[in-house]
Amino acid sequence: MSPAATAVSEVLPREQANREATGRLASCKPVLVDVALAGRVVPGFHRSMLLTSGAPLPPEDYVGVQRQALIGGALFEGLAETEEEAWGRIVSGDIEVAACHDHATVGSVAGVYSASMPVFVLEDPSTSRRAFCSLYEGRQSERLTFGVYNETVGQHLGFLRDVVAPTLRKAIRRAPVDVTTVMRRALLAGDELHSRNTAATLFLTRELVTSLLAVAREAYDEVGATLEFIGRSDQFFLHVGMAAAKLATDSAHGVAGSSVVTAMTASCREFSIRVSGCGDQWFRAPVPIVAAKCFDGFTQADVAPMPGESLIMETLGLGGSAAAAAFALRNYSGGTAALMREMSESAYRFSVAEHPELAIPFFDGRGTALGIDVFRVVELGLPPRIHAGAANRLGGHIGAGIMTAPMGCFEQARAACEETAAPSGLVRTDS
Amino acid sequence: MSPAATAVSEVLPREQANREATGRLASCKPVLVDVALAGRVVPGFHRSMLLTSGAPLPPEDYVGVQRQALIGGALFEGLAETEEEAWGRIVSGDIEVAACHDHATVGSVAGVYSASMPVFVLEDPSTSRRAFCSLYEGRQSERLTFGVYNETVGQHLGFLRDVVAPTLRKAIRRAPVDVTTVMRRALLAGDELHSRNTAATLFLTRELVTSLLAVAREAYDEVGATLEFIGRSDQFFLHVGMAAAKLATDSAHGVAGSSVVTAMTASCREFSIRVSGCGDQWFRAPVPIVAAKCFDGFTQADVAPMPGESLIMETLGLGGSAAAAAFALRNYSGGTAALMREMSESAYRFSVAEHPELAIPFFDGRGTALGIDVFRVVELGLPPRIHAGAANRLGGHIGAGIMTAPMGCFEQARAACEETAAPSGLVRTDS
Repeated sequence: MSPAATAVSEVLPREQANREATGRLASCKPVLVDVALAGRVVPGFHRSMLLTSGAPLPPEDYVGVQRQALIGGALFEGLAETEEEAWGRIVSGDIEVAACHDHATVGSVAGVYSASMPVFVLEDPSTSRRAFCSLYEGRQSERLTFGVYNETVGQHLGFLRDVVAPTLRKAIRRAPVDVTTVMRRALLAGDELHSRNTAATLFLTRELVTSLLAVAREAYDEVGATLEFIGRSDQFFLHVGMAAAKLATDSAHGVAGSSVVTAMTASCREFSIRVSGCGDQWFRAPVPIVAAKCFDGFTQADVAPMPGESLIMETLGLGGSAAAAAFALRNYSGGTAALMREMSESAYRFSVAEHPELAIPFFDGRGTALGIDVFRVVELGLPPRIHAGAANRLGGHIGAGIMTAPMGCFEQARAACEETAAPSGLVRTDS
Repeated sequence: MSPAATAVSEVLPREQANREATGRLASCKPVLVDVALAGRVVPGFHRSMLLTSGAPLPPEDYVGVQRQALIGGALFEGLAETEEEAWGRIVSGDIEVAACHDHATVGSVAGVYSASMPVFVLEDPSTSRRAFCSLYEGRQSERLTFGVYNETVGQHLGFLRDVVAPTLRKAIRRAPVDVTTVMRRALLAGDELHSRNTAATLFLTRELVTSLLAVAREAYDEVGATLEFIGRSDQFFLHVGMAAAKLATDSAHGVAGSSVVTAMTASCREFSIRVSGCGDQWFRAPVPIVAAKCFDGFTQADVAPMPGESLIMETLGLGGSAAAAAFALRNYSGGTAALMREMSESAYRFSVAEHPELAIPFFDGRGTALGIDVFRVVELGLPPRIHAGAANRLGGHIGAGIMTAPMGCFEQARAACEETAAPSGLVRTDS
């Protein structure tokens, strides 16, 4: 089933399946419809549960930033009184740890969700399918998602739950937001929607401001605090975008015969991918370290292996694949315009389609690369290069840069695709 | 005084003077401090006066869009009852018509100001120098500034004067806005600050939103209407930027020996420039027609010679010279990324410096071109190419594209510089 074995004019079943998968990626139209507590809306969630980033691991395998974040989540939720108790209950299974991706959710960095944390609720009106993501925690370097939990972090999570979330909930319910439009405009305004969401955050705020003004009649201080918080959080939109990308990639999952990647994720140990035609199997490799431009006072030696599922933006062809939309990222994560251009050009090579609405101005409006094909990645020897934040070994956000996806995952996935491929003719899809 | 006649290592008086002029362009830090009625704040303004775009002309020479706009301004201000009466009073001098540029003001398109029209007030705190610009009229194709005046246009101007201006005035007085920061961020987010101000408008709104929320406690509906108006006006910031650029260029004007352009402007008949070392003399040539990408239903044949002073953005090295910051402009004014890159690269050739804060991400953060030198323009045969809107012969906004500045102005200006140049040694400046 390798390309060389087939005449160019013949439609491969895999090609057809990949067209189906990328068609679903492109036609998903996520709408931001609500903000709600995870325990109330995330499917299969219960009060003694924590979600976290990455393909599932035995609880005792979570280390470093991610272990600290799980402990912090348990403390925040009141599932334990001390760090020791929390870790004991996690290892024993008293507190269930599950993978975000199995609950229509994606996690930022450590990605820990407990039941009373608020989430954005995104819905595709044509299918009523939903996906979820936590609220952005803010720019401060000490955040639960970077493995830090203390009184300040807890108070800030309380502020998000008690002030920001209810305020946004009221505003969003008055006027749900078409997220594709925000993303399309943001790509025209210098965002690649992973490491840079400055324009997307401003466009989202503009969509919400009339509703927020209406909410202010009853909750003036809360609206002021919410606008103030969003106003100093240029990455605020990222978590809306992550839920949007999860919705699109989930809708593209399960097309028999498709070799299109539908999830990339990292835990503290592993980088893993899932492929549309290969069911729920994760293809795993050791997690690579981000080559980072560090904030003042830190160096590459401080950078820890980092979990994270904002990689879902990269799965949808944004972030590193759309680097040429965001030349200003040089200021944040280093690199040159020439490198960014080359990264985006590479993405067209390992992808099977282009997005019909999301486009890169520098390429004269060419659509963003869509549908990472594990066959192309392996045959070209060209793994996705990913825009990523960098976490400190001791916790905290200390920079940003480029993570190169490990080839091992793609090689395993290709082998699995070859085993499961339909022998000929049309492929079955689950749609 | 041609470069060939001088050893490379010798500092020419002109070079020194140009360094002084561009240093002043770069060090001006405009702050948006107020919105007020033109008649109250613009120096030398009186109630029977109209300002308009371009180097001054005898009143009867204003034709087309610009004549219609002058008549409309007179009617809006109640200076006449009918179009005929208005034009008669303008031609007779009963209503005085003066050039915006002579009153620390720049005009959008026809650029007509009457005494009761609101203006942005920008101030450089280090010099207390001020400059002014009208409020953006909105996206509707029928606008006074494009030569249309009727009941709807008059009502809309009343809305700007009675609702938007007082609301913004209260918000801005609570929290004046550092305009350089907005412009710097906007260039990182896909604006070139002439034909595209989408990001700048969003950043400006973000700066004002906390103050607007405070104003809403007393004027809820007015704040709602103001935010709604700004929210559908991606060019809203342009008029703030124009006053900022006027402030910077006025501060760079009057450096003896400098061949740096401190104003480019167009009336319905002429394209004119002023040069730092040549006093108040205008160098004039026939106004060129914009090569436009027209909105649906219009063609290049419909495009009229167009007055306008948003050219002040180009004078500061933005717009066409910063085209490589705004590849998304293809959607609006046509062109390709390659053309935009080439336009910006040309600008470095005819300019004498680079802005220390405003930068183009695609050029890895290189400062925008600063200080158009009439000598370089003539010697390279490379006139500035300008991002411009296109006006209909019958009035109205029908597209956008590129206007090539006529070489005649630059040739006259160079000749004048050669005549007035100090023979040798240090040049006198008026600072």
